[in-house]
Amino acid sequence: MTDVVIAGIGQTPVGEHWEVSLRSMAVKVILAAIKDSGGLRPQALYVGNVLGATLSHQAHLGALLADFARLRFDDGESPDHRAGIEAETIEAGGASGGAALRQGYLAVKSGLVDVALVVGVEKFTDVVGPEVEAALATATDGDFEAIQGVTPTAQAAMLARRYMHEFNLPVDGLAGFPLTAHANAAGNKNAMFRKAITLEAYHKAEPVSDPLNMFDVAPNADGAAALILTRAELLPKDFSHPLVRVAASCSASDTLGLHNRLDPLWFSAAQVSVEQALRKAGMNREQVDLFEYHDAYSIFAALSLEAAGFAAAGQGWKLAADGSIGLTGQIPCATLGGSKARGNPGGATGVYQAVEAALQLQGRAGSNQIVGAKVALIQCLGGPAATAVTHILEKLED
Amino acid sequence: MTDVVIAGIGQTPVGEHWEVSLRSMAVKVILAAIKDSGGLRPQALYVGNVLGATLSHQAHLGALLADFARLRFDDGESPDHRAGIEAETIEAGGASGGAALRQGYLAVKSGLVDVALVVGVEKFTDVVGPEVEAALATATDGDFEAIQGVTPTAQAAMLARRYMHEFNLPVDGLAGFPLTAHANAAGNKNAMFRKAITLEAYHKAEPVSDPLNMFDVAPNADGAAALILTRAELLPKDFSHPLVRVAASCSASDTLGLHNRLDPLWFSAAQVSVEQALRKAGMNREQVDLFEYHDAYSIFAALSLEAAGFAAAGQGWKLAADGSIGLTGQIPCATLGGSKARGNPGGATGVYQAVEAALQLQGRAGSNQIVGAKVALIQCLGGPAATAVTHILEKLED
Repeated sequence: MTDVVIAGIGQTPVGEHWEVSLRSMAVKVILAAIKDSGGLRPQALYVGNVLGATLSHQAHLGALLADFARLRFDDGESPDHRAGIEAETIEAGGASGGAALRQGYLAVKSGLVDVALVVGVEKFTDVVGPEVEAALATATDGDFEAIQGVTPTAQAAMLARRYMHEFNLPVDGLAGFPLTAHANAAGNKNAMFRKAITLEAYHKAEPVSDPLNMFDVAPNADGAAALILTRAELLPKDFSHPLVRVAASCSASDTLGLHNRLDPLWFSAAQVSVEQALRKAGMNREQVDLFEYHDAYSIFAALSLEAAGFAAAGQGWKLAADGSIGLTGQIPCATLGGSKARGNPGGATGVYQAVEAALQLQGRAGSNQIVGAKVALIQCLGGPAATAVTHILEKLED
Repeated sequence: MTDVVIAGIGQTPVGEHWEVSLRSMAVKVILAAIKDSGGLRPQALYVGNVLGATLSHQAHLGALLADFARLRFDDGESPDHRAGIEAETIEAGGASGGAALRQGYLAVKSGLVDVALVVGVEKFTDVVGPEVEAALATATDGDFEAIQGVTPTAQAAMLARRYMHEFNLPVDGLAGFPLTAHANAAGNKNAMFRKAITLEAYHKAEPVSDPLNMFDVAPNADGAAALILTRAELLPKDFSHPLVRVAASCSASDTLGLHNRLDPLWFSAAQVSVEQALRKAGMNREQVDLFEYHDAYSIFAALSLEAAGFAAAGQGWKLAADGSIGLTGQIPCATLGGSKARGNPGGATGVYQAVEAALQLQGRAGSNQIVGAKVALIQCLGGPAATAVTHILEKLED
């Protein structure tokens, strides 16, 4: 079978966009991605979104965005031109963007869709207060966790506390993650926080849910990102970007309830989806040039490095502390700021990860460019890796 | 490429199930479908659901159901056994079940998933009052319709009023649809209302949103249905049901806002997806033995018959009035009660349609059996056909 390749990308700056509606943000990145592809016409739209129905009171985003972006079957004489293209929303908690990417990949791989459009969009900041935490808590186990008042941040704090206890971390043991993220975001014009932070600032930061402070928790933010997938032979003749293929797409799940896990400090779904992806791509970890992990919380970054096999259990945090995850380190992570400093727009995050990885592999990452990057591992998590969607993107030889 | 076939089905009675949780309903039908398949092991789970996050405060249903149904990669020695299978939720308003079926089909068709499990589940009746209408209204255009107080039922009523005016319908012109649905539901043990109704009862029914009365509006209900898709060669050797393949799977969209349509009385997305499906299957309308349309409202049934090409514009209601849609009519519809009398469990409805069509084609429809049925057309709508997902199921020769 032929390769599924990335034909176009689009993204909006992540931040607080009170002046822009959810649909406007999404349409903007759709048009940008189509333009970047040289004008390919998508035949199917997969939307990654978590909170539309709760925070924005807007579900059914597929048809809505297909309409507002004028994604029709045909503009010509065909009777089909009266209808918009196939469109649906994919939800898997915080992994929704990665899951939407996977559905787009499967659609193209099936041969039934030639050009798939994947859009991640989330509007967080129009609403403030407990309503936001309540909406986010719908991604935890409602009957056994949320009903007790557990929120995703509280879950992450419990994991961090346990991790720090088990593995004897110093109080700032996780600081390397936000420090790296913020340093990298400085070079990303679409990032929410484009300013490096110091260890001193980390020490002074307000606690959010002990032991996590403000810098251990990625900010919920507004954002939209898009990418277009197609088969290599369908690219426009004058397609000018280096070719990036989806070398592997894998997804796994785990219990929603943390209490149901044999070892809460081991992200099994993350591990399994990475192992499957490496197997499918026929690659080993040494070939991975960058890893866009899911750092909604600094503890998630540590556990992801371990689950992905870049560190032994309990040792992931050291890769952040010793600079190994930096842009010139052994395994660069969050190369354009990650969720922590680019911002975390929920269901859009997985699509941002893919867009950023594509920029790296296409040599379009500017001052954050990983020199000679050929293989990117990207992983999107829903909850504490209750869903883990892993993709490997690979730059093809010219 | 080899055929994608239906390997197993499961369904729970539709109704008010206050004593059963959303996850329990879903797990029950998952296990039933696996049993019906002779024990196939699903590798991916696609959940059709609309209102989990709003009415049940439970999103992230993919991982949740994969866990509670114990859908793991492997129970053996493989390290993969520690993780649950790939799982996600598909949402496209009332078409979510059909959209989930389509994703399962694409996954198997891609060759990357051998056995896909499609589950539709919805829990409506734990909540009563305006909260339900507000949740349903998230599937309309929030910024231009819902904000004015428009609900899906109000939209349908406007369409019905206009239709009755344009085409000079008598006051009971749409009555044939609920009469047929209720007559058929009498033979379906999983239906919510197993009682035929009379025209007199229709005349006496309470108005819901004029001109629609109680019998023109399908009841929101709890329910879950599941089906397993695989490639024909992967079926167990002793698979005993007649083989049913997915002959075509097509989806199209239209504006969410009714005001944006050139002709609100024409379901363009429904038309286009049916035409594409017939083309893909290489079939014509005369070969269709039954049509499971989306009768959330009786006016939708009329417009669906027209969009699907079984009647000219403005004439669809006559097929109900003259008995053509009855079990022995020219084009049997809602053969096991449809949304009106089987009940309408939102995101599960599209999966119920597929399960019922499979029962017909496998000769398992009991007293409602369409004799010699070989081809079933099923169509699931989100809103007033803002999303239309159409499948053609075909019984293969022995």
